[in-house]
Amino acid sequence: MSPAGLPRAALLAVAAAAAAALAVAAVAAWRRPRPLREVLFFPSRPCCLEALLAEAAAPGAPALPCPCPLPRAETSLSRLVRRLLSARRSLDLCIFAFSCPQLARAVQLLHRRGVRVRLVTDAQYMGLHGSQIGRLRHAGIQVRHDQHSGFMHHKFAIVDRRMLITGSLNWTTQAIQSNRENVLVVDDAACVKPFLDEFERIWEEYNPTNYVFPKVSN
Amino acid sequence: MSPAGLPRAALLAVAAAAAAALAVAAVAAWRRPRPLREVLFFPSRPCCLEALLAEAAAPGAPALPCPCPLPRAETSLSRLVRRLLSARRSLDLCIFAFSCPQLARAVQLLHRRGVRVRLVTDAQYMGLHGSQIGRLRHAGIQVRHDQHSGFMHHKFAIVDRRMLITGSLNWTTQAIQSNRENVLVVDDAACVKPFLDEFERIWEEYNPTNYVFPKVSN
Repeated sequence: MSPAGLPRAALLAVAAAAAAALAVAAVAAWRRPRPLREVLFFPSRPCCLEALLAEAAAPGAPALPCPCPLPRAETSLSRLVRRLLSARRSLDLCIFAFSCPQLARAVQLLHRRGVRVRLVTDAQYMGLHGSQIGRLRHAGIQVRHDQHSGFMHHKFAIVDRRMLITGSLNWTTQAIQSNRENVLVVDDAACVKPFLDEFERIWEEYNPTNYVFPKVSN
Repeated sequence: MSPAGLPRAALLAVAAAAAAALAVAAVAAWRRPRPLREVLFFPSRPCCLEALLAEAAAPGAPALPCPCPLPRAETSLSRLVRRLLSARRSLDLCIFAFSCPQLARAVQLLHRRGVRVRLVTDAQYMGLHGSQIGRLRHAGIQVRHDQHSGFMHHKFAIVDRRMLITGSLNWTTQAIQSNRENVLVVDDAACVKPFLDEFERIWEEYNPTNYVFPKVSN
């Protein structure tokens, strides 16, 4: 080995290590999933969701053509339903007003598929005409509600404890088809975690064992 | 120069370049501002905002002590107001129901400070008792509204075209003090840009030159 051998070997090692670090960083950056940022605006034009719901109910089964005249288009509503149907383990819902039958079908479908669905809603709105809360309860979905004079006005969903769907949209056909509304879908923990915590706080606070019932005089 | 000189120089150059690239990447990562993710939940306990508003109205001037009994605490409302007051050039507002006097004062203050404020609201809610829309219009702020049967149900603000404030919260005292609500503050372009585009779309669509007035028979 020449006297210059050691410095050359050291340089070679430094160059190799630096090149390897750069390569690892580049591969990590390339492989890192891009953060999810989807923004949906409403009103959403009417569309047929039968194929989407049928595929979610029986993946791979041939879908029967739906006789309804609505187009099978990609709309804000179909995108919202697709995000919900991506749930594999849990769906935590905090929905002020819930009267849209299509969204109720999607939630029921997830419940039947074994996804743990928990639903918090507003006591004053859950009994209104057209509310889907009774139907969802009847299907065996856990529902809790407030007992306050203020509204439980949130409208958010958390899919598999890692995707947040939130915005101005109540889950009503009126809101979906007629209102100017927004829904934001994100998956970064800095947004999802506080909403998860808020959900758990509300879920415990609205535990039926805490409900207060007025005394009835005989 | 020894016969081994050229490879050593080349290795040195490679090592130096790689080390420099790593250093540049590290400095860039260190200097890159962290993305803004703030989540505010309501109800917010009542608090005194006088010092916050006074400081924004006359930065540096000694604030007079407020005689009101409310605490000068950091709350979800004070954080929301602070975000709004950070506007330097523009504030674009799409607010379904706006009746909170404190938020109206913050918006007026920005307008007086030369910030370009544009406000879109809902035609059916802007005339309700307690609405702040008349006061804001009177102060010279540009306001536009829908003419639809559906609601302009958004509740978002964009500060300086780069910070989005959105959620379930209507800007009413009832919502702030009594409801379960959320507000999300983010600054990444993938979220802000679609809302900016939606604002511009609505702003043009609700241009008063497009308003339709019913014919009056003599």
